[in-house]
Amino acid sequence: MRNLTPASITDAFAEYAKNAPSARTRSLLVSLAGHLHGFVRDNQVTQAEWNAAIDALTKAKDFTDDKRNEYILFSDLLGVSSLVDMVNAATTGTPSSVLGPFHIEGAPELANGGDLWRGQVGEPLVVSGSVKDDKGAPAKGTVLALWQNGGNGLYSQQDKTVSATNYHARLTVADDGSFAFSTVRPVSYTVPDDGPAGDMLRALGREAWRPAHLHMIVHAPGHKPVITEFFPEDDKYLDRDAVFGVRGPLVLPFHKVSDRAALPKNLAVLDKLPLPVWTARIDFTLPTA
Amino acid sequence: MRNLTPASITDAFAEYAKNAPSARTRSLLVSLAGHLHGFVRDNQVTQAEWNAAIDALTKAKDFTDDKRNEYILFSDLLGVSSLVDMVNAATTGTPSSVLGPFHIEGAPELANGGDLWRGQVGEPLVVSGSVKDDKGAPAKGTVLALWQNGGNGLYSQQDKTVSATNYHARLTVADDGSFAFSTVRPVSYTVPDDGPAGDMLRALGREAWRPAHLHMIVHAPGHKPVITEFFPEDDKYLDRDAVFGVRGPLVLPFHKVSDRAALPKNLAVLDKLPLPVWTARIDFTLPTA
Repeated sequence: MRNLTPASITDAFAEYAKNAPSARTRSLLVSLAGHLHGFVRDNQVTQAEWNAAIDALTKAKDFTDDKRNEYILFSDLLGVSSLVDMVNAATTGTPSSVLGPFHIEGAPELANGGDLWRGQVGEPLVVSGSVKDDKGAPAKGTVLALWQNGGNGLYSQQDKTVSATNYHARLTVADDGSFAFSTVRPVSYTVPDDGPAGDMLRALGREAWRPAHLHMIVHAPGHKPVITEFFPEDDKYLDRDAVFGVRGPLVLPFHKVSDRAALPKNLAVLDKLPLPVWTARIDFTLPTA
Repeated sequence: MRNLTPASITDAFAEYAKNAPSARTRSLLVSLAGHLHGFVRDNQVTQAEWNAAIDALTKAKDFTDDKRNEYILFSDLLGVSSLVDMVNAATTGTPSSVLGPFHIEGAPELANGGDLWRGQVGEPLVVSGSVKDDKGAPAKGTVLALWQNGGNGLYSQQDKTVSATNYHARLTVADDGSFAFSTVRPVSYTVPDDGPAGDMLRALGREAWRPAHLHMIVHAPGHKPVITEFFPEDDKYLDRDAVFGVRGPLVLPFHKVSDRAALPKNLAVLDKLPLPVWTARIDFTLPTA
């Protein structure tokens, strides 16, 4: 096309791509180009603004390595990661949420009733609950992948004083679908904001805080894994999560319990937990298969 | 917002940004997020497709250094750079086009009638023309920044056998607005396609070719610099320029001339150019001030 105009460039892009080997790839990239073109046209983006965008992407390379990815962080802070999660989510059962950067493969097994607290800094928390299918039947054989930060706000990957698998575990639920474990109460924390994604947050007048949460992947037989996270309802960042991960049904009451007899009987450290402890109940419903 | 949905996330993003220090920045980033959200929703982008996009951005860092920027190349190949040029272009006069990656500051001065050919490989080309304002008056004092590739398809930055300023020059037009110089005819060439932007081209069934062109920045007194490029009308890639830079009025006839008397008299190498030579005429009209 020799006579490109702002109005014709997306059609030209689509025409240039007419020989794309995959119809889906062509459709995706034509749509992406069209949305980017719309962004430039709608805003009459200046050369200086385009330069700032290129600079941010270029600077992001200096904040990206095998432990951190600034491009994912941009996607998270723009709500893109959360939206990709939502459009792929099941429409029934407990909602999914974003994976985040701290999941690890090969986490240690934790017996049902087991302990992640281990006397570490922070407020003790007892989590108990169940995994059931959409008809209320227990999802026997379900494995829960669990991970969270510690009472100091750090994930094990960020804390050189703890083992790489601290607060990471895999727990198989009981035959009746029930589970329990002790841990510390996770705390709200900031995503890394020392790079260009942090610059974007500041330009938006936003903060880097995420509300506290317990990550979970529910591996139930006969179902695709469900990636999700659960939030205490008293967290002050619920309504401004930096990465848009909060979903209403994932917000849980956390209760303070001073009566040891009210705690699950199968806790390995039932007698050792200093009272009062926080308790949370997670009753997970699987999506319709 | 605890009850984010695919339909509400853009509004949530805008609400989160209500304290942005700059209204323009807020407007730009809310629009960008909205367009990215629209892209995800329109296409029901899968996690695997999102992963592929993140992988491409992450891989691009290994193809970006002080000589090459894969993020700019993505922008170029998606038509974004060209569109930013178009929405900022003057609506009168000779059109602008994309800058490209090979412009340098501090190019050597070239006298009017001077020579960039210097007997180098390729077909000799004589360029002559004028710079006039919108009323046809000569734009005295105009400086033309010129750069192009050589007959081997390489810019000086890509060719270790030539000086860093080969085929780069700054030429001041005569008082009547006229100019002339000798050079080689630029040739069509491929943008670098060994990185993830090249992977995108292949996924689109596209080629990396750009039609041959002469780059020019026109610095006329009392006007903003006009960045543009001129193309020979017989180039076979005019209708599929990888970076969407072609504009109709920038396509010029190139003629083969065998009569030395038909060449501009002020050429420094008038007697030395082997005949026939290519000629091109560029009559540049400045935008209305």
